[in-house]
Amino acid sequence: MYHSIKKFIESSTFQNFIISLIILNGITMGLETSKQMAANYGSFFKWFNIFVISIFTIEVSLRIYIHRSAFFKDAWSLFDFFIVAISLVPASAGFEILRFLRVLRLLRLVSVVPQMRKITTALVTVIPGIASIGGLLTLFFYIFAIMSTQLFGDTFPQWFGTLGESFYTLFQIMTLESWSMGIVRPVMETYPLAWVFFVPFIFLATFIIVNLIIAIVVDAMNEMKEAEEENIIGELQITDDSTKHELQLIRNELKELKALIKNSPTGFNN
Amino acid sequence: MYHSIKKFIESSTFQNFIISLIILNGITMGLETSKQMAANYGSFFKWFNIFVISIFTIEVSLRIYIHRSAFFKDAWSLFDFFIVAISLVPASAGFEILRFLRVLRLLRLVSVVPQMRKITTALVTVIPGIASIGGLLTLFFYIFAIMSTQLFGDTFPQWFGTLGESFYTLFQIMTLESWSMGIVRPVMETYPLAWVFFVPFIFLATFIIVNLIIAIVVDAMNEMKEAEEENIIGELQITDDSTKHELQLIRNELKELKALIKNSPTGFNN
Amino acid sequence: MYHSIKKFIESSTFQNFIISLIILNGITMGLETSKQMAANYGSFFKWFNIFVISIFTIEVSLRIYIHRSAFFKDAWSLFDFFIVAISLVPASAGFEILRFLRVLRLLRLVSVVPQMRKITTALVTVIPGIASIGGLLTLFFYIFAIMSTQLFGDTFPQWFGTLGESFYTLFQIMTLESWSMGIVRPVMETYPLAWVFFVPFIFLATFIIVNLIIAIVVDAMNEMKEAEEENIIGELQITDDSTKHELQLIRNELKELKALIKNSPTGFNN
Amino acid sequence: MYHSIKKFIESSTFQNFIISLIILNGITMGLETSKQMAANYGSFFKWFNIFVISIFTIEVSLRIYIHRSAFFKDAWSLFDFFIVAISLVPASAGFEILRFLRVLRLLRLVSVVPQMRKITTALVTVIPGIASIGGLLTLFFYIFAIMSTQLFGDTFPQWFGTLGESFYTLFQIMTLESWSMGIVRPVMETYPLAWVFFVPFIFLATFIIVNLIIAIVVDAMNEMKEAEEENIIGELQITDDSTKHELQLIRNELKELKALIKNSPTGFNN
Repeated sequence: MYHSIKKFIESSTFQNFIISLIILNGITMGLETSKQMAANYGSFFKWFNIFVISIFTIEVSLRIYIHRSAFFKDAWSLFDFFIVAISLVPASAGFEILRFLRVLRLLRLVSVVPQMRKITTALVTVIPGIASIGGLLTLFFYIFAIMSTQLFGDTFPQWFGTLGESFYTLFQIMTLESWSMGIVRPVMETYPLAWVFFVPFIFLATFIIVNLIIAIVVDAMNEMKEAEEENIIGELQITDDSTKHELQLIRNELKELKALIKNSPTGFNN
Repeated sequence: MYHSIKKFIESSTFQNFIISLIILNGITMGLETSKQMAANYGSFFKWFNIFVISIFTIEVSLRIYIHRSAFFKDAWSLFDFFIVAISLVPASAGFEILRFLRVLRLLRLVSVVPQMRKITTALVTVIPGIASIGGLLTLFFYIFAIMSTQLFGDTFPQWFGTLGESFYTLFQIMTLESWSMGIVRPVMETYPLAWVFFVPFIFLATFIIVNLIIAIVVDAMNEMKEAEEENIIGELQITDDSTKHELQLIRNELKELKALIKNSPTGFNN
Repeated sequence: MYHSIKKFIESSTFQNFIISLIILNGITMGLETSKQMAANYGSFFKWFNIFVISIFTIEVSLRIYIHRSAFFKDAWSLFDFFIVAISLVPASAGFEILRFLRVLRLLRLVSVVPQMRKITTALVTVIPGIASIGGLLTLFFYIFAIMSTQLFGDTFPQWFGTLGESFYTLFQIMTLESWSMGIVRPVMETYPLAWVFFVPFIFLATFIIVNLIIAIVVDAMNEMKEAEEENIIGELQITDDSTKHELQLIRNELKELKALIKNSPTGFNN
Repeated sequence: MYHSIKKFIESSTFQNFIISLIILNGITMGLETSKQMAANYGSFFKWFNIFVISIFTIEVSLRIYIHRSAFFKDAWSLFDFFIVAISLVPASAGFEILRFLRVLRLLRLVSVVPQMRKITTALVTVIPGIASIGGLLTLFFYIFAIMSTQLFGDTFPQWFGTLGESFYTLFQIMTLESWSMGIVRPVMETYPLAWVFFVPFIFLATFIIVNLIIAIVVDAMNEMKEAEEENIIGELQITDDSTKHELQLIRNELKELKALIKNSPTGFNN
């Protein structure tokens, strides 16, 4: 029983079935956004959603049965578990927002298709390398957000009224979207020296962002480089070992020669 | 006959004639956009276009005659074939749009000039390496498009009315064009928490795009690196081989010496 | 006394206490931006600020006592010193702006947390490498600023009225923010050829910026590369030294052999 | 006479004098943009300009006298020559624009300061490597410009009225400035399928630009890499040569030994 379930769940047929189901569900969810489609085929979409979520629930249950506690130690399994769990919470229970999160179900494509999984893992492994620069950026953002709220909060409450609004506006400025025509020029009409605050902020923010991106590039290169270095040094050691062996043979040859001369019947050195 | 046509078509004179024709046609097409020029020299432009397309048709026909089925297996030949074919379809036949596609004829410059061809090939070979990140980005776009249609479709139909409009708007937001002043701030006036949706989207989209670009960089570096590694290892093997040869000579020398001692008239070891 | 203070100041307990204090002060400063919070807990915030600044003053004083003149030679110590000094200047003394600079106190997190310190040092070391490109960019900016003031200053005083305004507007154009719809198109309505000035400026500015970023990347790579080169060459020398040793042994062997033959009782070569 | 002029012109004192003059002239030109300064010190600025241009004319004349025809073969000398020549053409002679080009004189800083010169040379050497991608981009721009003029020229003459206007608008779209809110959304109100034209254009243009930048990065890396490879291979050859020499010594040793045995008084092998 246990083994046949395991075999069944890990079979490529079943995997492909799950992938097809996610893609089909993706298509129906896309169609559902059309009012006309929703009106005509609403009940079909509803039943198909129930069908899909039932299959997913059964699949995850079987995987829990198979892997037991190991299931909850694997990040991808937990990912699947929470996505299915979200779909199971009844939307009526005060969690209106959960209905919108149902579409996250399509993210299962990432955990099921190996290439997607690989690329996502690669993207996630990038994060620790940029955490400290990210921390520094957050600190600068926080300081500038406090300052801008204090400086411009009273005059421009729509942009800098609260700490949160300042954060949002500074983020917008960092993306360079309408930073001058939309924000800084109007502010400068009241505070002509406002550029002293915003231009250095843009310099600092873009400088840190550029370095953050470079940190990712350098990290990626570094891995590549170490592989290359290992290859060259490995090759070096192989040729070195073979030279050593050859030299060893020559020394043996010489030792034999010495013995030959020493122990000759004419009795050298006796 | 066959060989003289082959020689003629592959001659640099003919190639240069075709290149000149494309450039001249490019110039006339450019001039044609001017109403005044079109009014004064319209018939000349018309006849020149017919002349160019005739030459191209003859050229492609001859190349098909020469290369036979091999013509249809070469990507660049097919490219030329379709571009000429588009020019031949009569514009009046309900395919109004084809008249605008005539200008694609200038793309033949890419297939005729070797450097352009090389650089285009290089650009195209980049694509497979970024396909899986591109797939991931598409999946995220799809999920966010469905969610934004569900969440904001009713209130902001001009931006999120249909799945297609949501896709377009999210693409605009990804390019950071007017994302805040134009889209998110107006949306936040109705849904104050809309930033919870859009700011992570921007983070995610730019993060994936940055990694996509880095993937191209790393790929380009990787090729370069392998060439370097091969050069160093090759050099290593050359010096290693010459050392081996030298050692072989020494061993021969030793063998001779041993033979000399063994076979001496005083009869060692006999 | 001296040693116990040194030990106390350098203890991780004290360091963690300072870090906690900075973070707590960060939180209270954040809360202080809320009018409601400031009204209700204003006096608490005030006293907490006084408490924090007292602790910092004591800490810096003790560090000056411990390190004496060495304190003023360490960049990070000076950094701490000025940040604390700014907090001590009374805001009422005509230095209204200093009140806003108090928040810079949170920057002490950078000097206290080792990882932050490391990353900041790395960011700062990038600067000299880009100084000459930065100088070139400044020169171009200055030339374009003078020209734009002369050319457009009278007609568009809001953008190019003074050298400073031109600098700001050109900076905005360099960030590509509303450069066309906001600035260049309106200017072109008066001066149809204005694009001859602005489009090359954008090309030049982005070209220099791109090269500035590439200079940072190449610098970062270069360091990495040199480390790799040293590793490979180091490995090369190790294998070389061991080969040399082996060869030495063989030569000794040979010398012994020669001596053996020369000094044999049968008296070769005597 | 000739030699003392040569020595004088190439002396660092004279070089520094020229540099100071350029910087001073830069400052006066900056001050001249201020209406108030121009009114009060106008005649001083005028005489100082005449003074500077006289010095520069004398300097360039002397350099021509010294280097003769070699002067006109050096790119930087020609650069200086034209900049001084522009300043000498009387502005009243129908060349109003030349008055604005006078400020280009400050560019002499680039040719006089060695570091600026070096960095500019580095920037210029980047260009050939990106010429073919640049050519491809130009071709695509031209094709899209013709198509957009044909498609949207009649309805949106302010953006796509002529080929030149289309070029400008497409350049604006490539920089992503107001591409959607400012251009494509209004166009889509008349032609709902306009995104089919513009979104691929943005993809194509940014893809080519990204690859153009990567080409610069890869080029810069490549140079660095070759230096590294040469270092490693050089080191390899040094150690190899010393090994070879050592082995040669051993063979000589062996030959001597053989001769010793052959020519011994006991007469082996005679």
